[in-house]
Amino acid sequence: MKRVKFVLDDKSIPKKWYNIQADLPTPLHPPLNPATGKPVGPEDLAPIFPMALIEQEVSTKRWIDIPEDVLEKLLLWRPSPLYRAHNFEKALGTPAKIYFKNEGVSPAGSHKPNSAIPQAYYNKIAGTKRLTTETGAGQWGCALSMACKLFGLDLKVYMVRISFEQKPYRKMMMRTWGAECVPSPSRDTETGRRILAENPDTPGSLGIAISEAIEDAVSSKNTKYSLGSVLNFVCLHQTIIGLEAKKQMKMAGDYPDIVIGCVGGGSNFAGISFPFVHDKINGENVRIIGAEPSACPTMTKGPFIYDFGDTAQKTPLMAMHSLGHNFVPPPLHAGGLRYHGVAPLVSRLLLDNLIEAKSYQQSECYKYAVLWAQTEGFIPAPEASHAIAAVAKEALQAKEEGKEKTILFCWSGHGLLDLGAYDSYFAGKLKDFDIQDDAIKKSLTGIAHLPKPSL
Amino acid sequence: MKRVKFVLDDKSIPKKWYNIQADLPTPLHPPLNPATGKPVGPEDLAPIFPMALIEQEVSTKRWIDIPEDVLEKLLLWRPSPLYRAHNFEKALGTPAKIYFKNEGVSPAGSHKPNSAIPQAYYNKIAGTKRLTTETGAGQWGCALSMACKLFGLDLKVYMVRISFEQKPYRKMMMRTWGAECVPSPSRDTETGRRILAENPDTPGSLGIAISEAIEDAVSSKNTKYSLGSVLNFVCLHQTIIGLEAKKQMKMAGDYPDIVIGCVGGGSNFAGISFPFVHDKINGENVRIIGAEPSACPTMTKGPFIYDFGDTAQKTPLMAMHSLGHNFVPPPLHAGGLRYHGVAPLVSRLLLDNLIEAKSYQQSECYKYAVLWAQTEGFIPAPEASHAIAAVAKEALQAKEEGKEKTILFCWSGHGLLDLGAYDSYFAGKLKDFDIQDDAIKKSLTGIAHLPKPSL
Repeated sequence: MKRVKFVLDDKSIPKKWYNIQADLPTPLHPPLNPATGKPVGPEDLAPIFPMALIEQEVSTKRWIDIPEDVLEKLLLWRPSPLYRAHNFEKALGTPAKIYFKNEGVSPAGSHKPNSAIPQAYYNKIAGTKRLTTETGAGQWGCALSMACKLFGLDLKVYMVRISFEQKPYRKMMMRTWGAECVPSPSRDTETGRRILAENPDTPGSLGIAISEAIEDAVSSKNTKYSLGSVLNFVCLHQTIIGLEAKKQMKMAGDYPDIVIGCVGGGSNFAGISFPFVHDKINGENVRIIGAEPSACPTMTKGPFIYDFGDTAQKTPLMAMHSLGHNFVPPPLHAGGLRYHGVAPLVSRLLLDNLIEAKSYQQSECYKYAVLWAQTEGFIPAPEASHAIAAVAKEALQAKEEGKEKTILFCWSGHGLLDLGAYDSYFAGKLKDFDIQDDAIKKSLTGIAHLPKPSL
Repeated sequence: MKRVKFVLDDKSIPKKWYNIQADLPTPLHPPLNPATGKPVGPEDLAPIFPMALIEQEVSTKRWIDIPEDVLEKLLLWRPSPLYRAHNFEKALGTPAKIYFKNEGVSPAGSHKPNSAIPQAYYNKIAGTKRLTTETGAGQWGCALSMACKLFGLDLKVYMVRISFEQKPYRKMMMRTWGAECVPSPSRDTETGRRILAENPDTPGSLGIAISEAIEDAVSSKNTKYSLGSVLNFVCLHQTIIGLEAKKQMKMAGDYPDIVIGCVGGGSNFAGISFPFVHDKINGENVRIIGAEPSACPTMTKGPFIYDFGDTAQKTPLMAMHSLGHNFVPPPLHAGGLRYHGVAPLVSRLLLDNLIEAKSYQQSECYKYAVLWAQTEGFIPAPEASHAIAAVAKEALQAKEEGKEKTILFCWSGHGLLDLGAYDSYFAGKLKDFDIQDDAIKKSLTGIAHLPKPSL
């Protein structure tokens, strides 16, 4: 009988996160205060984040202890199983061995709780009573709702209005976990009221939702703000995925030739790949591929620049690949990949050629996602389908070359709350989007005045 | 650090199912042919089931080998993890230790694939090309869709029309796994056309859907019918749950004082409990409780009689606890528990006092389901919430008595596609239903002419 799963018991859960800042060949460009053009200090971030997270954001310590209380909550579903996708391999007729880390087993159905839990914890011990956040598709809002409830924090989620209306199950999940979820723009903030006055029918945007969440956090008592991707400490928390995967690959008697993750803000990709980037920096021969949508080609077409993290320009300037903070991606189904920028850490690795970036059209992603569901059973989230397309391409390449490659990827979440995308696919209504260079150029023109990172 | 999970590796998956028919103190009453009043023989069932399943239905062999090809598919998610619910215990303030078997980890989100996989397999090797089935809430239809795709069988699912309209995600899941799903009554069968002619606006019923699926199976080439609960072989397939749980309880150094499952047709309850009923028959001191909805009190209020399995009287007569095949349960959210009868094997154990039955109102079930989601993270299916209510009651009883009881239960599935029920709960719109004795009496009057089982 072929072995399908490699499972770790509770005792084997990693006790430390891996901080890639300790091993970067080139240090990160510091985030800048947009008003002064100077690097931001802890005091600039203190109004929205607790000090422990700010310290993790800038730490260069290689290993950072996971607190006991965080481990206890992570054990509700972690360590997650590593699987070998024998059936998918067979369907492709590839000699490649395909392993996947199933992050869909979390109560929220994705990798997002890996950072939601520690963020709630560090806020709790710092005396925070309440958090605010934004959510687009809803994965992050759900994960943080659960985490806040487990640590006894209140939470208000500003959910992009169009998602709020189209995805009623997401807000019901948040409510079940005790969070308040409102459509954004809302009447609860000045930003929201101003935008509603100008355009009562606006569908909302992630940029607006971020503005509302930050405004709420800085103007409310005992309240901080929480973000589910992009930041260094989020990438840090997610490395538990790759650290577990390493142990499990050892159980399988294997080591990957290729590591793959889908990339929106970059957090699940960072999670699966950074522990292998560590090996690569130390001489290991491993390719690492970030898979992004052609409709939001941040890494493949966006320049490395200083840009805001949000549309409303409330964040510091971050040095990253970006399509410009006013870039509005077309309405592809993978809501979690519709972000104009990408984590500064991921951007740095791309610049240093430690990772590769590739982009995929969603029709191709769904073709392979359906093949996946029909061979491996589990129905992938729209985001994960991008990683699957990348895996399939590499596996077919291996077939062509007659090489037995070993591929590991992060199956970042299940698609049980995103089945509408499959429906569109079967109905032949799934659109592909090509982003013209002119559109990117236009979006970037608006931020030409911002400082440039030295290269 | 408290241990939360007890995981088995692939090698430890049970290789045999446990057949409780080998150990029954009293043998089952045979199913009867309603036309002749004589016990049905294999030839009566051959038009709708393959011979291997008919043999399992009547076998008294204690252990039945699980075929290698079935094991290979079950390994896609099995063995499922056993958890200790430390946080839920703490919230109840109980000295009881609560363990749960998480069947929500399957691709379809419930225990249903445990029987869907072997049913698809035995049909495949018997030369069946196509299956038909019915589904109410959609769990079984989804599970069989996945199983048929994995074995290369076509499937047509007749889905109760009101569910078809209210639960679009379920039909999208079935479609993703390649099945055809039509609302029942449909225009595709004589039964369906007749009913639509009489009542074009009928919401449909499980009884009608069963009739359509059976009519389709017997009138189509190379086609058989499949059922997701009630039958002996379905209970047999589900015993893999309890067999795994036994190994995992041993890992935990524990043995249950109480085993609990929710009961609709009885399959997940049979699965978790039969291996422990075996122990009880052999002298072990263990209580076994089936939790059913007050709105469909089959075991607690239904007499033990011969009755049809379906409204349209297409099945043999089965000796079981029943509210009468014309009984229409009120619209409680746990669609999987809305069945007028219960598995003959479960009925037999109840008569022989080897198991107990208790009923719960859905408002109470949701109260504890919400507490569960807010402490353990995972959001339970409406069906599983009934088991959770039973667990909570026993745990609170243990608290009152100051006893450290060990409780094991089957967490039969997640509720991510049933969040509307939680929404109703929070909106204060969740209704409780009391079934009056008169209503049951009236329902039973219609079948007073049927043969009676000797006691």
